[in-house]
Amino acid sequence: MDNKEQYKVRKEPFYQAQRNEVALYEAAYAARLPVMVKGPTGCGKSRFIEYMAWKLNKPLITVACNEDMTASDLVGRYLLDAGGTRWLDGPLTTAARIGAICYLDEVVEARQDTTVVIHPLTDHRRTLPLDKKGELIKAHPDFQLVISYNPGYQSLMKDLKQSTKQRFTAFEFDYPEASVEAGILSKEADIDPGLAGQLVKIGQAARNLKGHGLDEGISTRLLVYAATLIKGGVEPRDACRMALVRPITDDADIRDTLDHAIDTTFA
Amino acid sequence: MDNKEQYKVRKEPFYQAQRNEVALYEAAYAARLPVMVKGPTGCGKSRFIEYMAWKLNKPLITVACNEDMTASDLVGRYLLDAGGTRWLDGPLTTAARIGAICYLDEVVEARQDTTVVIHPLTDHRRTLPLDKKGELIKAHPDFQLVISYNPGYQSLMKDLKQSTKQRFTAFEFDYPEASVEAGILSKEADIDPGLAGQLVKIGQAARNLKGHGLDEGISTRLLVYAATLIKGGVEPRDACRMALVRPITDDADIRDTLDHAIDTTFA
Amino acid sequence: MDNKEQYKVRKEPFYQAQRNEVALYEAAYAARLPVMVKGPTGCGKSRFIEYMAWKLNKPLITVACNEDMTASDLVGRYLLDAGGTRWLDGPLTTAARIGAICYLDEVVEARQDTTVVIHPLTDHRRTLPLDKKGELIKAHPDFQLVISYNPGYQSLMKDLKQSTKQRFTAFEFDYPEASVEAGILSKEADIDPGLAGQLVKIGQAARNLKGHGLDEGISTRLLVYAATLIKGGVEPRDACRMALVRPITDDADIRDTLDHAIDTTFA
Amino acid sequence: MDNKEQYKVRKEPFYQAQRNEVALYEAAYAARLPVMVKGPTGCGKSRFIEYMAWKLNKPLITVACNEDMTASDLVGRYLLDAGGTRWLDGPLTTAARIGAICYLDEVVEARQDTTVVIHPLTDHRRTLPLDKKGELIKAHPDFQLVISYNPGYQSLMKDLKQSTKQRFTAFEFDYPEASVEAGILSKEADIDPGLAGQLVKIGQAARNLKGHGLDEGISTRLLVYAATLIKGGVEPRDACRMALVRPITDDADIRDTLDHAIDTTFA
Amino acid sequence: MDNKEQYKVRKEPFYQAQRNEVALYEAAYAARLPVMVKGPTGCGKSRFIEYMAWKLNKPLITVACNEDMTASDLVGRYLLDAGGTRWLDGPLTTAARIGAICYLDEVVEARQDTTVVIHPLTDHRRTLPLDKKGELIKAHPDFQLVISYNPGYQSLMKDLKQSTKQRFTAFEFDYPEASVEAGILSKEADIDPGLAGQLVKIGQAARNLKGHGLDEGISTRLLVYAATLIKGGVEPRDACRMALVRPITDDADIRDTLDHAIDTTFA
Amino acid sequence: MDNKEQYKVRKEPFYQAQRNEVALYEAAYAARLPVMVKGPTGCGKSRFIEYMAWKLNKPLITVACNEDMTASDLVGRYLLDAGGTRWLDGPLTTAARIGAICYLDEVVEARQDTTVVIHPLTDHRRTLPLDKKGELIKAHPDFQLVISYNPGYQSLMKDLKQSTKQRFTAFEFDYPEASVEAGILSKEADIDPGLAGQLVKIGQAARNLKGHGLDEGISTRLLVYAATLIKGGVEPRDACRMALVRPITDDADIRDTLDHAIDTTFA
Repeated sequence: MDNKEQYKVRKEPFYQAQRNEVALYEAAYAARLPVMVKGPTGCGKSRFIEYMAWKLNKPLITVACNEDMTASDLVGRYLLDAGGTRWLDGPLTTAARIGAICYLDEVVEARQDTTVVIHPLTDHRRTLPLDKKGELIKAHPDFQLVISYNPGYQSLMKDLKQSTKQRFTAFEFDYPEASVEAGILSKEADIDPGLAGQLVKIGQAARNLKGHGLDEGISTRLLVYAATLIKGGVEPRDACRMALVRPITDDADIRDTLDHAIDTTFA
Repeated sequence: MDNKEQYKVRKEPFYQAQRNEVALYEAAYAARLPVMVKGPTGCGKSRFIEYMAWKLNKPLITVACNEDMTASDLVGRYLLDAGGTRWLDGPLTTAARIGAICYLDEVVEARQDTTVVIHPLTDHRRTLPLDKKGELIKAHPDFQLVISYNPGYQSLMKDLKQSTKQRFTAFEFDYPEASVEAGILSKEADIDPGLAGQLVKIGQAARNLKGHGLDEGISTRLLVYAATLIKGGVEPRDACRMALVRPITDDADIRDTLDHAIDTTFA
Repeated sequence: MDNKEQYKVRKEPFYQAQRNEVALYEAAYAARLPVMVKGPTGCGKSRFIEYMAWKLNKPLITVACNEDMTASDLVGRYLLDAGGTRWLDGPLTTAARIGAICYLDEVVEARQDTTVVIHPLTDHRRTLPLDKKGELIKAHPDFQLVISYNPGYQSLMKDLKQSTKQRFTAFEFDYPEASVEAGILSKEADIDPGLAGQLVKIGQAARNLKGHGLDEGISTRLLVYAATLIKGGVEPRDACRMALVRPITDDADIRDTLDHAIDTTFA
Repeated sequence: MDNKEQYKVRKEPFYQAQRNEVALYEAAYAARLPVMVKGPTGCGKSRFIEYMAWKLNKPLITVACNEDMTASDLVGRYLLDAGGTRWLDGPLTTAARIGAICYLDEVVEARQDTTVVIHPLTDHRRTLPLDKKGELIKAHPDFQLVISYNPGYQSLMKDLKQSTKQRFTAFEFDYPEASVEAGILSKEADIDPGLAGQLVKIGQAARNLKGHGLDEGISTRLLVYAATLIKGGVEPRDACRMALVRPITDDADIRDTLDHAIDTTFA
Repeated sequence: MDNKEQYKVRKEPFYQAQRNEVALYEAAYAARLPVMVKGPTGCGKSRFIEYMAWKLNKPLITVACNEDMTASDLVGRYLLDAGGTRWLDGPLTTAARIGAICYLDEVVEARQDTTVVIHPLTDHRRTLPLDKKGELIKAHPDFQLVISYNPGYQSLMKDLKQSTKQRFTAFEFDYPEASVEAGILSKEADIDPGLAGQLVKIGQAARNLKGHGLDEGISTRLLVYAATLIKGGVEPRDACRMALVRPITDDADIRDTLDHAIDTTFA
Repeated sequence: MDNKEQYKVRKEPFYQAQRNEVALYEAAYAARLPVMVKGPTGCGKSRFIEYMAWKLNKPLITVACNEDMTASDLVGRYLLDAGGTRWLDGPLTTAARIGAICYLDEVVEARQDTTVVIHPLTDHRRTLPLDKKGELIKAHPDFQLVISYNPGYQSLMKDLKQSTKQRFTAFEFDYPEASVEAGILSKEADIDPGLAGQLVKIGQAARNLKGHGLDEGISTRLLVYAATLIKGGVEPRDACRMALVRPITDDADIRDTLDHAIDTTFA
């Protein structure tokens, strides 16, 4: 119980709904269907899941996936103890036991084939075999699996297998519309709407460069950074250069183009 | 005995036979011939094996294979204990000892050469040498080995070796025929046959795109997801978008084509 | 002594000699020359060695080689015990100590360079250095090393080195002649010679497709599977489809060609 | 507390500001925004961070990243102790607990996907999940994350992911202007301004060769080396050859070009 | 002392000198110069070293090198014991301590860079640093290092580095001349000189095919095998096929060419 | 103290200075600047460092770098002991503690990114963080870091990074001039100057073949080998063949060219 409480999201996270995604997620959760959230970097995928966990009042266990993550990192392992070996549940196992929402962030980073360990948790079986322990876990009725991924990253080498994808319902996210995004900036950094609108305009200019020298556009998160620095007394042009441009490009031409857009906006 | 009971399938799984596969499997099991089940993602291969285990009243041990799976993960390993090392049987060894059906799911994912450990269990020897333990296990008379694989995934890099393939009898599966599939949807999600038929039609449209922008068609499992969401109150077009389209493609053109098919169906 | 008995082949294995291979093997064994058995999948290489071990009344230790097999898996390793580390002989070491025939099955699967550990056992030295233990084992006078390999698999990446090959005398196997193979089928599955001849004919048809869409022909083992299923009451066409065709090909054209040959045979 | 003091920078490091970077860093730190410092080898990135840690009077924990660094090297691991296993915090965890500035030097050297462990520390969560320990650390209010990287090294294989980059504000560094750099040389090696100016001129000549046979220009650090050797009595031409030329090129033409520039300067 | 005796070659190995190699080796040993023996598979390199060790009455420690051999396998490692860890010398360390000839067989198989551990033993230092133990071993005055390699195997990927090669004096071996080789066959297999001459002629025919379909010629070792089988009662043509042809080729044309040469010889 | 003495070079190594490198090294050491020695195989780089350590009366710790060397091999690791784990300093850590010259031989062999562990020891910090132990070592005032590398080996795959190179002053070595080299041969092998001159001439002939069939020329070390064998009674042509030619080439044409040069010299 204690353990369960530790994973509860205590404070309502700020989340600005874009369409009917909250209701659709509730329906998916009601049927305990696995969920995939797709979308570009920094558009609010993780925030959405955190918000839903808070709204549904369920514990949330987040795992940042990476290429070196083994199945044991998800499922658990034996540790050597004073009295011999002791089993330690991994985050996925913990989530299955306590009935948490288990959120595997950037799941494509995990080794493609490591992802098969989630398969029996995502069909009618809802089980997790701990082969190394010889135990078969029946998932708690509240358990749900959620994964995120960024379609822009997919390559021939790194993509989810169809046999994994076809176990999920999917939500597609994008950067919020201008007015919504400006509202987010005002709210998060406590700046005035006019300034927020100017920042959003710079963000949108950069997003148009995606595929033309930029791998990704400027995320909402970086816009919030710029707003925060300005609020903290930094000159807007300096704030934009250091929060919006320098982090995302090393290319001198792109940098100059974006700097110019900033100078124009804050002329 | 206890251990054996834990792996029994207690409740009859819903399984809709497509042809005489149940009788053929019974014949293969009677001669304890190894079995390979082939077919696309989500067409019911695992469900079939679960059903047969239930029908034959034999324990079923399922292993989701993956690239990082070592022979030790199948066969067993030594663990460090208070009194030194202790041997822990792997799932394949357990199955051979208790007389279970051992089901290696997505066996092509396992390292090609790791699969040789199953060889002596699949010919007249029916033995499993535990080299690390210095023990030679004689398989229980009830033991049978089953593997699944999806021919669509094979590549030059990842295929079963002929010396492995030629140890199995094989069952080839495909998506069920329209009427059978509609029946499955009605039964599993408790929706009316008309709606089920509409969903099946969308599924079939998508399957025609296989090889033309889609790696795989929409599985029966995803159709059940869509049916479940509609049953739970989600608008059919929303349900189809999130259960049938968003999970399987990131391509804008394919997505629009499928969305259009959905709009047409539920116009 | 006990250990030795465990590896004896207790029952005469069914083996149908093809030429004078039994006498030649006896001569090689008399001089304790290392032996290599070559030939396609499922043609009876392992059965031959098992038969010879029975005939010579020597223990037989078989190791299914694989890419992940390390020298330690063959030679032995230290295990952690209550009182510290304890050495555990690997199968090759055990064979050298007790005077067994050590049969390394599919030796090309092992890492090419791991195979050098067998070198000192295959020349005039007949020794096995356990470097990690600081012990030099003199092989038991009865010890002999046997390896199998399938020439069809060799590639630039995976072949035995000449310095390994040139330590062996070699036996080349192929599928048995039609009458011999039919005899094997009748005997093993207890079917009548006519049916056996029909199955052999299908097998030979498939073997002609090798290199023309099939990687390997249908093995004697698969023909025995088909015979077994028919004996168990399965309709011959169903039995052939599931035992002879589905396991060896995923190609629709090849499948149809073979199915047609079956339909013609059992029309 | 003790631990914290060990990481304090006790003596003001010599740092020559180039523009308003000190004030901008203070603003970023005030909002606890993560910081990325970019620039060529030896231009003073690490010195800047050390200076800021001293100025802000915060402990500084530096980690030299490398390809073999695992997530455990950053986060912590279990050690075997007399009484079983004992957890040892890694440098990132220590920094998060005691409220240090954690400086990941040359972060692109780390495995791209290992860097995901820093993600939850760089957004609104400011948490670090110790999956292996089952603990979720809330970062100390003083904690800040800083990374350095050299854009010249980036390649398709080794670059930070956008989802990592977009979590940082960025400072771009370059070699100091001539007069500033000469001032640094005089101050650090206690040589006269004329000599310092001569060395800076040689440095600038080499920097013009970048991309024309040199991978990087001569860093400020190497100029300080040359100045130090001259101060120690070495003949200027010998000092420049061994400090400025031999370390950075093996190419005979480039070497001769640079040697010639040195001879001209100190003719 | 005891340990030393275990590695002595007790019985004079049969060795037929080809030129003045015995005297030259004695001179190299007298100056303790490292020795490299080069030559094709099975031409007697290992036998020569064994003979010299016997003649010089020095212990001989042979290590069959392989790709998975780590520096620890040569130098030594810590083992876990009842009272904690215990250091176990590797074969190279043992040889350096007791004054043995250490023979690294097929050294190119070892990872190229692992071979650097032998460097300090092969120059004026004659030391072996045990970094992991913090000990610096001074080699025993009798210690000498010998490596073998087969130039035919070298490729761009696998060759000794010049900085390794230039630490050795070298002996180049080839198959013995016809009369010498016939003498070896008579002596080793106790056959009459006429038969021996016939076998040598077949061997020479095959050696002419090297580079024309054969990777290597037939070694003296295989000729001894054939002679042994004939002596044991096997028909010469059968003996030659199984000892000389089947082991070295899987190519049907080459096989037929060689079989024909055998039939001609023993017509 | 004891430990320190063990690493002292007790006897003056024979070293023939080529130019003012001894004085320049003393200046670099006086300022504790890191040193890189560059040059071909066997030209005396290691001998020079040994000589300088003797001259400066500082302990010398040499590490032969290799591809499998991990940061732990340099820095140290935990060992399991009777009372749990115990930390064991690596050679770099020992050198930093006792104030030794730490000589990393053939540093390009080490994994490129492992070399970052030396960075904080090579700038103004002069520290070594033992991340795994949570200790920050301040280098002893006498500590200096020296690396060697052979420019001929560099490739795109294996080169030092600029950010590593730009932390060193560099000394470039080559084979000594003819008269100096002849002096070395006379002195080291106690042969007469005429013979020494003849050997040097052969060496120079071979060095002209570098890049024309030879990867490297004949090193001074090999010339010393030849001189030693001749001194020991070996006929000069035999000595040159086995010490100068056979070790460095497997190419028949190059071998004949060099043999011819030898025959001409000693006609």
